[in-house]
Amino acid sequence: MFIHHVYFWLKNPGNAADLAQLKKGLQTLTAIETIGMYHIGSPANTTREVIDRSYAMSWMLVFDNLEDEEIYQHHPIHKKFVEDCKHLWEKVIVYDSVDE
Amino acid sequence: MFIHHVYFWLKNPGNAADLAQLKKGLQTLTAIETIGMYHIGSPANTTREVIDRSYAMSWMLVFDNLEDEEIYQHHPIHKKFVEDCKHLWEKVIVYDSVDE
Repeated sequence: MFIHHVYFWLKNPGNAADLAQLKKGLQTLTAIETIGMYHIGSPANTTREVIDRSYAMSWMLVFDNLEDEEIYQHHPIHKKFVEDCKHLWEKVIVYDSVDE
Repeated sequence: MFIHHVYFWLKNPGNAADLAQLKKGLQTLTAIETIGMYHIGSPANTTREVIDRSYAMSWMLVFDNLEDEEIYQHHPIHKKFVEDCKHLWEKVIVYDSVDE
């Protein structure tokens, strides 16, 4: 299993139109065939001190393996998403995890 | 859906015994009934500049909702895990995400 988890911090985090555009863009990615499971998220109402809830949106994908994730990375739909939406974010952190 | 994703940075990140102890501790948590899906991970071999692969181990849980996650948080098995393993880590970041 390969988990690709992306956290987005936006230039205008409270802007509903920007959030909606990012969400719409992420939804286009779900057409990429190698994705096994996906989740578009926002910070939960949990507030322990180790919890980072400063991000605006999260994007979690489960792939079978690295090869399937690389197909996603280089897919035209993914490239179009980055072109269309990259102006929205100020910072992105990606954590890619494989079976330990 | 409620996704609880924890990233651990260890005091001795290259220490195989410490990694094994953390993994064993995480495996005990899988007995908690409200967990829907779990994944114990380590950084993948992906290296784009937005990727943070400095953590030692990741722990991803999927719950149906916040209530199920709170049961996990307060479960005796979880409290025992924290007591047994907290000396291993230097830093923990948790991202809790709900459906956007």
